[in-house]
Amino acid sequence: MPFRAPVTDFQFLFDHVVDFANVSATERFADADRDTTEAILLEAGKMVDEVMAPVNRNGDLEPAVLENGVVRTSPGFADAYKAIAEGGWISTGASPEYGGMGLPHTITTAVNEMMAAGCLSLQLNPLMTQGQIEALEHHASEQIKATYLEKLITGEWAGTMNLTEPAAGSDVGALSSKAVPNDDGSYAVSGQKIFISWGDNDFTGNVCHLVLARLPDGVPGTKGISLFIVPKYIPDEAGNPGVANTLGVVSLEHKMGLHGSPTAVMQFDNAKGWLVGNAHDGMKCMFTMMNNARLGVGGQGVGAAEGAYQMALEYALERKQGRTPVEGGGTIIDHADVRRMLAGMKADIFAARAIEMACAVAIDMGTATGEKEWKSRAAFLTPIAKAFGTDVGIKVAEDGVQVHGGMGFIEETGAAQFSRDVRVTAIYEGTNGIQSMDLVARKLMDGGDAAYALLDEIEDCAEKVRESMADLAEPLWQATETLREATEWMVAQGNMNDRFAGSVPFLRGFARVLGGYYHLRAAMAEGGEGPRSKLAKFYIQRLLPEHAGVLVHAMQGAEDLYAITPEDLGAA
Amino acid sequence: MPFRAPVTDFQFLFDHVVDFANVSATERFADADRDTTEAILLEAGKMVDEVMAPVNRNGDLEPAVLENGVVRTSPGFADAYKAIAEGGWISTGASPEYGGMGLPHTITTAVNEMMAAGCLSLQLNPLMTQGQIEALEHHASEQIKATYLEKLITGEWAGTMNLTEPAAGSDVGALSSKAVPNDDGSYAVSGQKIFISWGDNDFTGNVCHLVLARLPDGVPGTKGISLFIVPKYIPDEAGNPGVANTLGVVSLEHKMGLHGSPTAVMQFDNAKGWLVGNAHDGMKCMFTMMNNARLGVGGQGVGAAEGAYQMALEYALERKQGRTPVEGGGTIIDHADVRRMLAGMKADIFAARAIEMACAVAIDMGTATGEKEWKSRAAFLTPIAKAFGTDVGIKVAEDGVQVHGGMGFIEETGAAQFSRDVRVTAIYEGTNGIQSMDLVARKLMDGGDAAYALLDEIEDCAEKVRESMADLAEPLWQATETLREATEWMVAQGNMNDRFAGSVPFLRGFARVLGGYYHLRAAMAEGGEGPRSKLAKFYIQRLLPEHAGVLVHAMQGAEDLYAITPEDLGAA
Repeated sequence: MPFRAPVTDFQFLFDHVVDFANVSATERFADADRDTTEAILLEAGKMVDEVMAPVNRNGDLEPAVLENGVVRTSPGFADAYKAIAEGGWISTGASPEYGGMGLPHTITTAVNEMMAAGCLSLQLNPLMTQGQIEALEHHASEQIKATYLEKLITGEWAGTMNLTEPAAGSDVGALSSKAVPNDDGSYAVSGQKIFISWGDNDFTGNVCHLVLARLPDGVPGTKGISLFIVPKYIPDEAGNPGVANTLGVVSLEHKMGLHGSPTAVMQFDNAKGWLVGNAHDGMKCMFTMMNNARLGVGGQGVGAAEGAYQMALEYALERKQGRTPVEGGGTIIDHADVRRMLAGMKADIFAARAIEMACAVAIDMGTATGEKEWKSRAAFLTPIAKAFGTDVGIKVAEDGVQVHGGMGFIEETGAAQFSRDVRVTAIYEGTNGIQSMDLVARKLMDGGDAAYALLDEIEDCAEKVRESMADLAEPLWQATETLREATEWMVAQGNMNDRFAGSVPFLRGFARVLGGYYHLRAAMAEGGEGPRSKLAKFYIQRLLPEHAGVLVHAMQGAEDLYAITPEDLGAA
Repeated sequence: MPFRAPVTDFQFLFDHVVDFANVSATERFADADRDTTEAILLEAGKMVDEVMAPVNRNGDLEPAVLENGVVRTSPGFADAYKAIAEGGWISTGASPEYGGMGLPHTITTAVNEMMAAGCLSLQLNPLMTQGQIEALEHHASEQIKATYLEKLITGEWAGTMNLTEPAAGSDVGALSSKAVPNDDGSYAVSGQKIFISWGDNDFTGNVCHLVLARLPDGVPGTKGISLFIVPKYIPDEAGNPGVANTLGVVSLEHKMGLHGSPTAVMQFDNAKGWLVGNAHDGMKCMFTMMNNARLGVGGQGVGAAEGAYQMALEYALERKQGRTPVEGGGTIIDHADVRRMLAGMKADIFAARAIEMACAVAIDMGTATGEKEWKSRAAFLTPIAKAFGTDVGIKVAEDGVQVHGGMGFIEETGAAQFSRDVRVTAIYEGTNGIQSMDLVARKLMDGGDAAYALLDEIEDCAEKVRESMADLAEPLWQATETLREATEWMVAQGNMNDRFAGSVPFLRGFARVLGGYYHLRAAMAEGGEGPRSKLAKFYIQRLLPEHAGVLVHAMQGAEDLYAITPEDLGAA
């Protein structure tokens, strides 16, 4: 059973759970009506099934390699990339002015997730380009836009993000790369960048690097950082790739997974670059793309979970082992614990995907209406979508290995690849720890308004069916009250460290409750009868109860934690 | 900072948490007094630090390979094995009659765990041999004992377990390997076995396979299976390796981790073997070694967690990134979330190790006293020690990667290796799902006596300090009551499938509460002041609350679960 993109699940979420109709009803996205979006999802899903999923194993078995300074990509990747680009799947959300489809970000997010399920390592390439397109659309000069955007949008060229340096990871402000003005309005960019995803490839005509560096008058820290576009080949007067720039790939990392994606150490030696946005505004420009990139990485987690789930389901339907309690049942799917694992995987994927889509809808509504409430909701949901989506990706892939039993540990099955590939999603684009700190600090700076608006929405919904669907609505309502108390506790902490000491479990608890809400809405759409209602019951009875424990954990504060000294932890 | 075996932690557990003095007080283990055991732990720890830990990376970077039918092991493994054998570390628990030390299984378990922390892939070799020694001691004829035991105990020869076949994994009874009597009292064993850990090596004079196969008059299923010892080289009259047997390694698996351990497909073609135990009693003989092997695998999980923890701690003490809230604090250990992760890792390792040691003590007390209560306790704790120990191994290794941030995904650091290596421990020797089914079915066949005895012990202890250490004792007492209700619910279910539908979360909840008990005892030993008390508080406040959610999950029964059909899960 080959991979099948979960198109109908997206359509169900759009129709019944995340109110995509609100997006279509805006003037900005009026073209994105139901027929159009459905056709697009179907077309994208077909491409993923036929083009991307078949090359996923190649990326793992024949990783990208560096040969004499040139990156050679995995077999089949170049053709698959061509299909992605020609289908327009890099630029569903990009501005029509330069050739994009101008669709809502919700559609882009769904398409990205499907592509991640098909081949995570290859999908990362257009995901990076999308971020670059977005940054240029918002911040670049008309000249830069004219030179780069169309070629990035068609996929003729690819884009990368160059933030990290050996001593500047989560703390971007510590970077030491420099940029010095040239006479012609360009800059000479120098420095070494690490962990550069798709730092080079052998299938696009150019690779355009967005590089964070400090101008001579840049102050230390994040406020002195500027953003530059530094192409592998300097565009000539006609806009075609010209002379090679003074930059290159020093080496590729040997990683736990995602072998098909070349992760480069990049060296820039007075490489020619152009300022994007204002001087010293680099972090602001970077954040434009980073927010959506975070949601995109959350979608990578959900996509990898989908791929792992489908593989495990197929195995469970085929593998015979032991007597099962189901009459006529002959395969391991009829063992209670295997079925419990599969139902848990599916229920968690639904929850994570719904959060992801709700975040994307909030982004679109913010864009279309300009309303603060939607923008705040999008900002609040982004770290949850990123961290919970990738946590679910890791957990589901791990359960996928477990369903396979001994075969799961053997690389031939491919189950282990999902587990190894998805692991990085909890780390890059800001570790999940960083996401949780963002949630409890910056995203509660509104005094909790965005959080409470969500909690109110959940309780309003639960109250509507408190009698007709009591077994779902009642525990969800109670859980929401517990979450409200935890949120109030967080907001009340003046010392950020008291928040940080419980930020990861708080994010987890918030996601658990949100997941329950979206499951309830799915069940309501079915009138409480049907497969989604059964899954909702599974989630609310078995998985939602986790919220209580993690929210207790969330509210312990920093004092007892810091009482445990490095020496107590075993430091010599 | 190189690896340091946690000798003092074991000694603390022995002295204050698992009452090892009771073992020393028996006639059987009177020699294992405190000075002796401490000296042994120190000596073993030294060997692990100096010999095993240094070769751990070799196993991953230069895996065992099959060359012209011969297994070539990783660089340094042969010498490290020699040191293990010469130190007597294969046979601390083996009978002195054949050269073993005759020490309590608790000591063997501690030594095994330390060895697992040093180099999991190599440690698996002596772990297999230990199981074989035990099976032969209990079930083999005097002649077989005389031929094999001394050489296995000295490590001159190694032993393996051959159970699994392609269609017979968890369901051992489905195997199709055959054994036909020869004229000379031996048997001709034929069949293919898969997933044979250390199926061959290049550093022992012989490799002795314990093989499950069916005699011509063996009935189908587990009751018709017999156990045979089938050596690679048939011992000659002097007991030395003679002619090669008709068996061999067909191939080695390409695994997610544990690359240093060759996992073989073994082919037996009328290979000469000898019956161990009675005909058709193979499963009984196998269970003798499997119970202790399960505890041993649990210890592998804890050991891998220890190795991963030490590596993460070292990184957190050295890595500078961002401003921390601690005055003079300069490394990431002072970030709240990093410290929370490290404290959680250490607290979980303590809990899992204490359960492991409590199980080993119960085994020793059962052996020394013959009392049913101790034997039942050992039997009850074994699946918990196996599943929780390996779950903790996986979780801690994953957190270890996370503490490393981006570097965690890069193989050079070694953090990823711990995560990949330990993954199999939740699968082999009976998946953790199988362990949990064993717990709620077979291990509750006593009507819950063994479980309730543990719960009574916890509550008695908590009541003693209910006032003086209320912040620890009170939540633990409450959690124990919740666990008692869940246990009563399990015992009351006549349909095993209702138990199985919640067996994994039940095991998890039981382990969580047990962990709280051992943490409380550690705090009591310190009088409530000190590093172990602070860690106990962390565990009881932050990790113990998980029990409530998983125990709700445990009590949902099978009906709603089976209502979710394969079609609901996505079967076409």
